[in-house]
Amino acid sequence: MKIKEFQRILEDKGQDFALFYNLGMEINPNMLYFSGYNGLGALIIPRKQKPFIIAPRMEVEKAKKSMIKRVYSMDKKRFFESIHTIIRKNKIKAKKIAIDNNNFTLNIYKRFKKQFKGVKTKDISLDCLKLRQIKTNKEIQIIKKAFNYGNKILNKTINNFKDFKTESDVSGFLEYETKKHGLDVAFSPIVASGSNASMPHYEPQNVKLKKGFCMMDFGVKYKGYCTDCTRTIYVGNPNNKEKTIYNFLLNVQKSIIKDIEVGDNCGKIYESCVKDLKNYSKYFIHGLGHGVGVEVHELPNLTLNSKDKITENMVFTIEPGIYLPRKFGMRIEDTVLMQRKPVILTKVPKGLLIV
Amino acid sequence: MKIKEFQRILEDKGQDFALFYNLGMEINPNMLYFSGYNGLGALIIPRKQKPFIIAPRMEVEKAKKSMIKRVYSMDKKRFFESIHTIIRKNKIKAKKIAIDNNNFTLNIYKRFKKQFKGVKTKDISLDCLKLRQIKTNKEIQIIKKAFNYGNKILNKTINNFKDFKTESDVSGFLEYETKKHGLDVAFSPIVASGSNASMPHYEPQNVKLKKGFCMMDFGVKYKGYCTDCTRTIYVGNPNNKEKTIYNFLLNVQKSIIKDIEVGDNCGKIYESCVKDLKNYSKYFIHGLGHGVGVEVHELPNLTLNSKDKITENMVFTIEPGIYLPRKFGMRIEDTVLMQRKPVILTKVPKGLLIV
Repeated sequence: MKIKEFQRILEDKGQDFALFYNLGMEINPNMLYFSGYNGLGALIIPRKQKPFIIAPRMEVEKAKKSMIKRVYSMDKKRFFESIHTIIRKNKIKAKKIAIDNNNFTLNIYKRFKKQFKGVKTKDISLDCLKLRQIKTNKEIQIIKKAFNYGNKILNKTINNFKDFKTESDVSGFLEYETKKHGLDVAFSPIVASGSNASMPHYEPQNVKLKKGFCMMDFGVKYKGYCTDCTRTIYVGNPNNKEKTIYNFLLNVQKSIIKDIEVGDNCGKIYESCVKDLKNYSKYFIHGLGHGVGVEVHELPNLTLNSKDKITENMVFTIEPGIYLPRKFGMRIEDTVLMQRKPVILTKVPKGLLIV
Repeated sequence: MKIKEFQRILEDKGQDFALFYNLGMEINPNMLYFSGYNGLGALIIPRKQKPFIIAPRMEVEKAKKSMIKRVYSMDKKRFFESIHTIIRKNKIKAKKIAIDNNNFTLNIYKRFKKQFKGVKTKDISLDCLKLRQIKTNKEIQIIKKAFNYGNKILNKTINNFKDFKTESDVSGFLEYETKKHGLDVAFSPIVASGSNASMPHYEPQNVKLKKGFCMMDFGVKYKGYCTDCTRTIYVGNPNNKEKTIYNFLLNVQKSIIKDIEVGDNCGKIYESCVKDLKNYSKYFIHGLGHGVGVEVHELPNLTLNSKDKITENMVFTIEPGIYLPRKFGMRIEDTVLMQRKPVILTKVPKGLLIV
């Protein structure tokens, strides 16, 4: 995506080319964003010439199926040496190189500098994040399809909830349904029942579902794009106090989404949520939301003091929560696409569901 | 694990403390190894004092369930500021700090240096990898249990193979069974049928299982420890040539394992595999094996020119493969625990299975 816009940035900043790499098991989000390739190797985007991928032999066939058709094979051990050779062959200048400091480790930097002696590097990470936060029409189409899958799977899971005995049954079902569609989960699903839900990032265990609130945080990855949605349902019979607190949180969440407008300051949106949560705000222990794209957490940040501004074609979450240590936890998270008004992508009912 | 041994290394190298962090979605393997904690925050291991974790508020409850009982809460945005304050309060010197350059990005390093002005850092990554490659008795117990799960799930999948119609059905089943046991997969399972298997890191699609060889590469994570196993089965009726090539690869794989002895050089083991593969060696396009532990790829490296030596209590894979571009691929991968002789942990039949 946005290769030409990115090349203009390289031009403006006087950079000869940008280098992104992936040498581990994880995905380099910018490499994935610009090329569609998520395997091992490097992506080179020269200021003028067409971008190309350099991949170890075992990954070349896979790389050729990406958006980038120029693929070179290289020796993983001689990584930067191979890159250097190919760059020279293509007569690309290599004095000023843009790199992504968020996805560049100190050790790889050392290896890089050993090969590319005397070059000047410039951190391009923020420019990439800023490009990525405004989605193109093509991306929006993919993202909508991704949410179709994510919604379908979460709805099916909620409808089948009576069949599950343990937290792991629920998360297993979520993963199975995801795989059945040929997709991956965007992150390991969170299924936290009873007091376990007071840990926002709890990992589901092979333990019986406890009575009380049960939080499910789930997303899929479709063509590289993530979805993100949290629903909290109730196992057993909630008392009036529990119903009241859930509906209170739900109303806060709904009213925040309703009020969001293009140009809003994200720190301000966070603050208004804290205000709306009144006495419960001390039990709201994380940010209000984040952008969603090739990474499940990206710009904008809807957190304290954030200076990000809401713009059309951003995709981000609104996820207030209330966590009482060792007692219970609840979070209601939608992902919205910003148009003139926010459009909710997570079409999964959010009224208190009792199972 | 091995906190005391690690503190001796800090002592020897004159380091005041070691700092590991995790500020993203991924796991920091050394933080996990030393503390059992895999959430957001930092792990500080002082040379003399007890180690402690500094975690954002939302993760404190989770951190307290790890092996480290001292947990401080902090503000994620003021990450290094919070760490600095706590270190000062505990009267820990902060002139020489050991860090893990493999899991330290350039941007985080910049933030770190801004707070810890004038300190000297030392890369401790190789020391950590070397500690981790020799497993303790406690680790071996966990690892054996992890493989019990991994083997059970892969065996069940193979036994049920007739029920699957698509590659995604198979990978979905693998993930579902894993989750049902309350575990995570160690990596997204690879299920590659027919010509897709010629890409060693192919991602399963929602496509019909093709006739021919079908490769499944699968592992679970149990208490932080990974398993790793690949089996290649045959869908349909193999001809004699196909049977012969499979059995040829199987015999190579078996004989390599049989011959491994304590003290062997890993580069030499790789070379002898290449020799055994004869004319097929040009279709063997990746390393022969790698250590397995809290990371699915760690030391030792069984690759060309590796100088690693086989030692008792190492856990590593032996996984020769033959890949004919756009035609077929096969890999047979066992994970072994090195005792006087290698002990195969992946108890999943490897004779050619026809389904």
